[in-house]
Amino acid sequence: MRATVMYSAGDVRVEDVPDARLIEPTDALVRVSRAAICGSDLWPYKSMEPTESGRRMGHEFIGVIEAAGSGVETVKRGDLVLSPFLWSDGTCVFCQEGLHSECLHGGRYGSDDVDGGQGEAVRVPQADGTLVALPVGEDDALLPSLLTLTDVMGTGHHAAVAAEAGPGKTVAVVGDGAVGLCGVIASKRLGAERIILLGNNPERISLGQEFGATDVVRERGDEAIERVRELTGGLGAHSVLECVGLEQAVVTALEVARPGGAVGRVGVPEHDTTPTGIAFWKNASMAGGPAPVRAYIDDLLPDVLEGRIEPGRVFDRTGTLEEVPDGYRAMNDRDVLKFQIVF
Amino acid sequence: MRATVMYSAGDVRVEDVPDARLIEPTDALVRVSRAAICGSDLWPYKSMEPTESGRRMGHEFIGVIEAAGSGVETVKRGDLVLSPFLWSDGTCVFCQEGLHSECLHGGRYGSDDVDGGQGEAVRVPQADGTLVALPVGEDDALLPSLLTLTDVMGTGHHAAVAAEAGPGKTVAVVGDGAVGLCGVIASKRLGAERIILLGNNPERISLGQEFGATDVVRERGDEAIERVRELTGGLGAHSVLECVGLEQAVVTALEVARPGGAVGRVGVPEHDTTPTGIAFWKNASMAGGPAPVRAYIDDLLPDVLEGRIEPGRVFDRTGTLEEVPDGYRAMNDRDVLKFQIVF
Repeated sequence: MRATVMYSAGDVRVEDVPDARLIEPTDALVRVSRAAICGSDLWPYKSMEPTESGRRMGHEFIGVIEAAGSGVETVKRGDLVLSPFLWSDGTCVFCQEGLHSECLHGGRYGSDDVDGGQGEAVRVPQADGTLVALPVGEDDALLPSLLTLTDVMGTGHHAAVAAEAGPGKTVAVVGDGAVGLCGVIASKRLGAERIILLGNNPERISLGQEFGATDVVRERGDEAIERVRELTGGLGAHSVLECVGLEQAVVTALEVARPGGAVGRVGVPEHDTTPTGIAFWKNASMAGGPAPVRAYIDDLLPDVLEGRIEPGRVFDRTGTLEEVPDGYRAMNDRDVLKFQIVF
Repeated sequence: MRATVMYSAGDVRVEDVPDARLIEPTDALVRVSRAAICGSDLWPYKSMEPTESGRRMGHEFIGVIEAAGSGVETVKRGDLVLSPFLWSDGTCVFCQEGLHSECLHGGRYGSDDVDGGQGEAVRVPQADGTLVALPVGEDDALLPSLLTLTDVMGTGHHAAVAAEAGPGKTVAVVGDGAVGLCGVIASKRLGAERIILLGNNPERISLGQEFGATDVVRERGDEAIERVRELTGGLGAHSVLECVGLEQAVVTALEVARPGGAVGRVGVPEHDTTPTGIAFWKNASMAGGPAPVRAYIDDLLPDVLEGRIEPGRVFDRTGTLEEVPDGYRAMNDRDVLKFQIVF
């Protein structure tokens, strides 16, 4: 089968790999219908050391079950299914607490013997715990929005939850990438009164405003901090979604938080250390990390199916699997916000 | 009047200063009955640059109102009152949210024209918002425990609240100082199932066990982390109270938190940066800062008055005002856990 393999920074290829197949009785074999390139795929695209064997890529996909192991009970051959970006058993102590990202028997796509999502098929471990059957057809117009539930929409939601966005709150979203824009959707969905989007790409800002951003701060660094303070009567935002991960964005997020406010961070951190002194002296909290997307699908799916949220609008380019290398380039150059792969 | 003045690291003197007096109509003049030396007073004791004018010290005190300004309504001459370590108006947006430590019209003792608590009398600004009248006499046996509500017990409670301690939770308390021991009391009071105290001073550990610690970890650094993991089935603690502030303690706190757990920090941070990468990858939250002690008094006061908690037991030495310089020395040398001043 054909699949995406990264060999080093900037070197992404689509090539023949061994066919995906069932190994464990708890596996499902999924033929991929839609997949996507994630912002986090750009980290190795920028920095990966060359390897001979390459690294299988992709962790956001929807597909049809072609075969299921003997132990799989909740999904079956022919089901159109959604997979979170991590697989999980759904039964361990962490899954029971809604923290599927820490599943004791879970893992990542594209590592060990598990295929990546940017390919024709994927062996999905722990299929019962991982996959969610969708009540729509493979060509449904909702597929782009459903596809975002595998990662980007769930991640934006996680930032909003960690930042305690809700009714009466002023929210600041740091970053106008696909996660930040989904963070705007999530904040609005959770009832935030005011949503300040920090970004400077005109098209992304425009989409953010359609998603619910009430204010836009185009400045960066100290000027952005000053501007958010002006917009909030000098107090700062109750809830801040850090959707970038770069040092400057993290500092901005901490600085624009109101005393007693909450920073929800989902941007993969550029550095392991954070200037939390800013947060300590004003009693701002900081939470977040890799999103337990599986936990959020039950909440978010009805809103997508009933058209109340349209996170699929973050896909501004759609192409075939063979076009994926150019999709990486385009996303890395910021020509494209998010690339959808249609098989 | 006599009061405590620090001139440089290690140089604390009790000397004559101008009498405390009313300045604003919202002030109360309090004759101090009891006061204490705080762990945070040891920071300047270790590091203060010499100054000619000196710095008035102390922010934990109970006393009797000798005079009240014309605008003071809730307390009156003759009342025995408790003051939180920060004064606050009780009406601003932050006070209304229970974050009195960020009061827009509040401030600290021992700065500008406000006396320190380690002296014979104190001008208390914003007396209505700040002071709490006590239903006991000046010589009541509960005074030591009531005195802890000015700071150390409220601070331990803040750590426990920020760490989301509660029923069914395993709590780890990093530090066996007076704040850590009050954190043990607070965790037990909030219903924690298991309380692991990290410390290595035999007497403090013993007191911590009487306060409710179910397990003790005497190791430090990596060994302490390993030991907490062993005690928690490899998972870590749901709630971690960081009651020290030194880099190693902060790292230990983050490391022993369970995935999805919460770290509540109240130790004055040694460094402005924190290795939060540890927390990010396991979705642990971090909250806390200077405790909004005023907000907690209503909760904690009945438990002290009815003898359900005895935080006053952290005072292991009592002396007069003239003995305060030796109290600083003794606390700094760790000969004394916490020094109480009786006037």
